[in-house]
Amino acid sequence: MSDLSQFVIPRGFRFGATKAGLKQSGRTDFAIIVADAPASAAAAFTANRVKAAPLLIDAEHLRATGNHVRVVAINAGNANCAAGRPGIDAARATCAAAASTFGCKPEEVFPSSTGVIGVPLPAEKIVAVLPELAKNVGSQSDHFQQVAEAIITTDTVEKTAFARVEVTAPEIDGPAEIPQEIRIAGVCKGSGMIHPQLVPHATMLVYLLTDAVIEPEVLDTYLRAAIEVSFNRISVDGDTSTNDTVLLLASGASGAHIGPGNREFAAALNQVCTSLARQVVGDGEGLSHVVELHIHGAVSNSEAVRVAKAIAHSPLVKTAWAGCDPNWGRLMAAIGYSGAQIDPERIDISFGDLPICRNGGRAPEFDETAAHAYIQQPEFSISIDLHQGPGTCKYWTTDLTHEYIRINADYTT
Amino acid sequence: MSDLSQFVIPRGFRFGATKAGLKQSGRTDFAIIVADAPASAAAAFTANRVKAAPLLIDAEHLRATGNHVRVVAINAGNANCAAGRPGIDAARATCAAAASTFGCKPEEVFPSSTGVIGVPLPAEKIVAVLPELAKNVGSQSDHFQQVAEAIITTDTVEKTAFARVEVTAPEIDGPAEIPQEIRIAGVCKGSGMIHPQLVPHATMLVYLLTDAVIEPEVLDTYLRAAIEVSFNRISVDGDTSTNDTVLLLASGASGAHIGPGNREFAAALNQVCTSLARQVVGDGEGLSHVVELHIHGAVSNSEAVRVAKAIAHSPLVKTAWAGCDPNWGRLMAAIGYSGAQIDPERIDISFGDLPICRNGGRAPEFDETAAHAYIQQPEFSISIDLHQGPGTCKYWTTDLTHEYIRINADYTT
Repeated sequence: MSDLSQFVIPRGFRFGATKAGLKQSGRTDFAIIVADAPASAAAAFTANRVKAAPLLIDAEHLRATGNHVRVVAINAGNANCAAGRPGIDAARATCAAAASTFGCKPEEVFPSSTGVIGVPLPAEKIVAVLPELAKNVGSQSDHFQQVAEAIITTDTVEKTAFARVEVTAPEIDGPAEIPQEIRIAGVCKGSGMIHPQLVPHATMLVYLLTDAVIEPEVLDTYLRAAIEVSFNRISVDGDTSTNDTVLLLASGASGAHIGPGNREFAAALNQVCTSLARQVVGDGEGLSHVVELHIHGAVSNSEAVRVAKAIAHSPLVKTAWAGCDPNWGRLMAAIGYSGAQIDPERIDISFGDLPICRNGGRAPEFDETAAHAYIQQPEFSISIDLHQGPGTCKYWTTDLTHEYIRINADYTT
Repeated sequence: MSDLSQFVIPRGFRFGATKAGLKQSGRTDFAIIVADAPASAAAAFTANRVKAAPLLIDAEHLRATGNHVRVVAINAGNANCAAGRPGIDAARATCAAAASTFGCKPEEVFPSSTGVIGVPLPAEKIVAVLPELAKNVGSQSDHFQQVAEAIITTDTVEKTAFARVEVTAPEIDGPAEIPQEIRIAGVCKGSGMIHPQLVPHATMLVYLLTDAVIEPEVLDTYLRAAIEVSFNRISVDGDTSTNDTVLLLASGASGAHIGPGNREFAAALNQVCTSLARQVVGDGEGLSHVVELHIHGAVSNSEAVRVAKAIAHSPLVKTAWAGCDPNWGRLMAAIGYSGAQIDPERIDISFGDLPICRNGGRAPEFDETAAHAYIQQPEFSISIDLHQGPGTCKYWTTDLTHEYIRINADYTT
């Protein structure tokens, strides 16, 4: 009864984590995900032009294998970024050791790192713990949970999400009328330096697993679509990391085939991604408020996102939220400098259902006491209607607090 | 001896300020600058698409007069922005009253406002104090200083700058060999919501005065060039205000003509603008460090500015500075997501003369103790060389502190 793994964990994968001595805290800091056979893979990496060493290796390995992965090797506590040639060498040493341990090619290993930038990764610490770790991997939910724990850094909670889809696709081996179950599981970390711009856009690390049978190129299409409405719609501090990575692996162990355009699978993947993205925002460094922005009436969806990002990145808007201050003038300023097409005299703003601004000026019903009370809630929503077109988006962000300053003004020292 | 006004204050202008009751603090909050005769004018306004009412009126008035101004009417305590029709009406009422008081056309009045957004300006308070204020205007340096005091909001100090130029231009009436003196004076306010993007780009208000004889179109060319290397090269919080304004008036009272391409005049104007811009950054809300960025080796100057802005707007970089943390990895991340053309392996970073990063990795000479000590200074410089081309820029910004959060999390409430 207590072990849900037979219901939620995608088949065809094993998991494990251990202490390699990379986190100053002494907690677990190295995790692996091992596919029983080479899994179809789709990945997205940060748009930052400074990319951590493992991301460069990952791209090279995916090309070499035609997008297949056997082992995902993830360390926390060191980003292995801006570490020059020693950084590249450390990532390769990790891959070589993992390949040797699990009997695959080095190109079938997908390394990931998160933590401090600019300090060479001590790969020998990872190489030393691999043999013992390999003995302890397993396919139960508690093994999966070990990964979630090991990969976090400034995160305060582990972040996982699960979905199941029943398919009756005709390609399935066997009678078409018998539904088959596909599982999707996601695990991620991220709290600060969060403004993923993934290409198709990610110090956010996200691992999505499914036991569906899906070709890599089809997998990629699903991943891009899901990212666009989830990880690319969140910002904590507007800093796009050098290490962001989203990896989707399909083991095929369910035997259920998924071709292009499967709405149920797409919806389930979006649900898992959106859940993880919101968990990242909800664990944003030092936050006291999570804010859901609804932008309507933009010329296009991308213009709506432009408005949302300007708001989500404004220190003045974010500090007002921290102070539960219904200072909507700062929202107006951010909308104005977003670059989106607007008519200042047609902008409407509401906090939840409370009218705040109408036609660019204070709404007649504006009630400062009610507005103040509304944004004292730990989670609230702000709706903005530009009345310019059909463009719309949802976007999730946080306030900017004393605690954020405390966390980030004393990180490496 | 103590009155320097005969040396520094441009001739042809009078100044005054009074209490209109707009600041909650009860300090002076309404100032005027009156030209003895219509002065040549050049102005630049914020690139924010939400523009305060006075900016709309200003643009209209400058068009109507062929860029001439008699009276500048500046209030602090209320931005008169996002206040709908009542905001426009309030600005017009101020102009009408000032025109009546000083015997000019309403179109010759240039209104400015700074303060809280979204609250209609009570113009009647300004109209009520104008007659008495008109009796007390004067051309001495203490009158000029009154303007500097009245226009500040969250600023902690008044900001002024002065320059003198000797010209022997042949157009001057009289013997060409006799040098004539031109004076330039500037006064400004600005502390938060500072990331002027003036068009040609400015809650920063800047008033520049000279007694040179200069045609408006020539004046405009000098102003644009000066803004580009001063006010458009600073950021406190990355929020571009709805009210930013830079106004340059030339009274002609010196009798000295300035045509296009006068290097001495351009250099003096640049000096005044750069001094004011650095004073704004130096008074940035809550700062504990002022940072001068030197970007070298960009493909172009605009690419260099792009890199500087990404760094200046990064909460992670700014909080590291607040903590005197030499975390140069955050600089690398910001450079990487700036969008500028870079090669991560060719980036060099130094703090002052201290090598920090070379070829994208930690410099061999990196000395964390020395780096930490260097950025404990209240003002320090960071140099970044991209080795991509001839593009360069200087840029001034601040750190992000607890005090910034305190100031902005409790502003209107």
